[in-house]
Amino acid sequence: MPAESLADSRIAAFSDGVFAVAITLLVLDLQVPKGPLERLPVFLAGEASSYVLFVLSFAIIGIKWLNHHRLFARIRRADTTLIVLNLVLLLGISVVPFTTALLGRYLTTPDAPLASVVYGVVWTLNGIAYTLVLGYAQRSGLAPAASTLAERRVFLLYAIGPLGYAVGAAISYVSIPLAIAIYCLVVAAYIPPYGRRAKPAA
Amino acid sequence: MPAESLADSRIAAFSDGVFAVAITLLVLDLQVPKGPLERLPVFLAGEASSYVLFVLSFAIIGIKWLNHHRLFARIRRADTTLIVLNLVLLLGISVVPFTTALLGRYLTTPDAPLASVVYGVVWTLNGIAYTLVLGYAQRSGLAPAASTLAERRVFLLYAIGPLGYAVGAAISYVSIPLAIAIYCLVVAAYIPPYGRRAKPAA
Amino acid sequence: MPAESLADSRIAAFSDGVFAVAITLLVLDLQVPKGPLERLPVFLAGEASSYVLFVLSFAIIGIKWLNHHRLFARIRRADTTLIVLNLVLLLGISVVPFTTALLGRYLTTPDAPLASVVYGVVWTLNGIAYTLVLGYAQRSGLAPAASTLAERRVFLLYAIGPLGYAVGAAISYVSIPLAIAIYCLVVAAYIPPYGRRAKPAA
Amino acid sequence: MPAESLADSRIAAFSDGVFAVAITLLVLDLQVPKGPLERLPVFLAGEASSYVLFVLSFAIIGIKWLNHHRLFARIRRADTTLIVLNLVLLLGISVVPFTTALLGRYLTTPDAPLASVVYGVVWTLNGIAYTLVLGYAQRSGLAPAASTLAERRVFLLYAIGPLGYAVGAAISYVSIPLAIAIYCLVVAAYIPPYGRRAKPAA
Repeated sequence: MPAESLADSRIAAFSDGVFAVAITLLVLDLQVPKGPLERLPVFLAGEASSYVLFVLSFAIIGIKWLNHHRLFARIRRADTTLIVLNLVLLLGISVVPFTTALLGRYLTTPDAPLASVVYGVVWTLNGIAYTLVLGYAQRSGLAPAASTLAERRVFLLYAIGPLGYAVGAAISYVSIPLAIAIYCLVVAAYIPPYGRRAKPAA
Repeated sequence: MPAESLADSRIAAFSDGVFAVAITLLVLDLQVPKGPLERLPVFLAGEASSYVLFVLSFAIIGIKWLNHHRLFARIRRADTTLIVLNLVLLLGISVVPFTTALLGRYLTTPDAPLASVVYGVVWTLNGIAYTLVLGYAQRSGLAPAASTLAERRVFLLYAIGPLGYAVGAAISYVSIPLAIAIYCLVVAAYIPPYGRRAKPAA
Repeated sequence: MPAESLADSRIAAFSDGVFAVAITLLVLDLQVPKGPLERLPVFLAGEASSYVLFVLSFAIIGIKWLNHHRLFARIRRADTTLIVLNLVLLLGISVVPFTTALLGRYLTTPDAPLASVVYGVVWTLNGIAYTLVLGYAQRSGLAPAASTLAERRVFLLYAIGPLGYAVGAAISYVSIPLAIAIYCLVVAAYIPPYGRRAKPAA
Repeated sequence: MPAESLADSRIAAFSDGVFAVAITLLVLDLQVPKGPLERLPVFLAGEASSYVLFVLSFAIIGIKWLNHHRLFARIRRADTTLIVLNLVLLLGISVVPFTTALLGRYLTTPDAPLASVVYGVVWTLNGIAYTLVLGYAQRSGLAPAASTLAERRVFLLYAIGPLGYAVGAAISYVSIPLAIAIYCLVVAAYIPPYGRRAKPAA
């Protein structure tokens, strides 16, 4: 498709907005007791898993924002296909306050594995969207092709990452804490900087 | 009216903010069960139409953001009338989390057609706001007049689009899925890039 | 106080964010029926006043954003006092989804006048915050002093505006629709461009 | 870690977004009566402490935004560690609508001291995150080392501030109003401009 006249800056601004709103809406999953009040220690203890999930989803969205940032730092211009792929990517981010709340609500029920699968599948699809954005940008010349070893390593990470989330989702039927540990491991793999081997700051 | 001293950048930033918040607030329409828990598959199946509507409204707002982007890329400066018209346009975007929730809530009732009409009328009015922004900007010299064939095609699209949403709204009394299909068709017509015939990227 | 090293751009970005979130959160005041469903026309008719208030608050916040924009276009640099005053101004904006919901909830009760007073007092205080920002910026040399007739007219508008909201609030005890009409009149006075007499665009 | 290619501007934009959304979501803690209506004066009087807490949290987040602004004005470039530390900082901001609501809900119960501790501990941890960001940036050369007396005073403030919040939290078991007064005092210490001794504007 022909290149858009869209400035990257507004794509970044809109994407930052969606990331910032989604990550902050996670707090709405933290309920304050309604109706008759339990004692606060009892209430907080009962909600402990919600707090863990809140931090988990916050961390994943935060690291995904960081990688979105890195991804678009490489993209020199946008076309319509890229923008539509980016919208699909953002759809996967914006739905997380819901999948997090769902997992929290069903965590102590027999349906916890299914809720964890829903949670992991959204991350899987979102990971695929990242891969599509990167792959499309490189193939269509919107971003430089992966030429260095470091850049090929990044592409490999993007190709394998969604698989990692999918494995985590499948493991949910064995153990939810193990599934969550895998989600953490996968996202942690995205933290180290990539794409350039700058000298460490003195 | 005299030209404003307003920089376009802040208009774009504010508009991006409203688009980003509205598109992300759609997630609040996705409910987590309260009170006694249904089994999760039963719950998810019962909410399936909410998920479809969530994706539909996300896609429409996303594509409308893309076109807002394109529209303001052509506008060289703003005046007060343009800013007020843009506020009317944003009003139509910000109300969508409500009309989406309303349609989801009434979808299985005898009032589903009316709920779909409300949903479609908001898109119709919002489409008219886009047309007014473009038309006013061209007439008052804030944007270059449509001179090329491609630009006249865009104006035609903007003039016909609202009619498309209105037809979708009217069709609601025949069939809701058909109405939704028409909403999808209309918004899909706005995806292709326009206004310049750039050579495809190699 | 000494001048801050703060770039105006980040103050504008943060303020735009608060305006954009507050104006979009208004949609949360539009309720979808819970529990047993009324017929939709009955429900919509019963909520009609909520929709009017939604549009009213959207319009006021939108026009106040426009004037915030104009105000900061004149401010050449910021200091701490100015930033704190701007935070007070933003406090008045961010509370509007609450005062709007409160007025909607009490509109058909004997306490409607008091709810309208609460609504109007927030606008009054917010208007005073605008006046303080403008007055402080001009007095401390952060913005050029009002030298032309047009600029003095703006200062007069900023000085009288809060009084207008206060009158609207007081009128609430006579007639709520009249109070709302006065709120509309006051905010409409802020729409015309000011501060420069540009030639109309050809 | 190697320096990122990330532009500071997008870090600031994302952070501004989180601050703006969190500060505006505080309004959701202000409830409108559901079910049977109390008289409005009775309702408002009963909610008075919620309004005080709303203003308190708004003021603290606002001043923390100001200091985030100042902090990043000194940071010349970012690396991955800094961005991760900044995400931890933002986590502490985004959770405030919850801790504020929790304190408001338990303020009149025997568990009020514990709720105030939760509230204060979040500020304490958030204050530590600020200190870590500043300390890391200075140590790793991303920001100039504190060389002047004024800059050393800022670092002292950042090192002592979290202790102040912790003291406020501990005092909660003596008196909640006193604890809140301490929170106010600590945040007030962050208002004066720092880092440069500019001449006062004439």
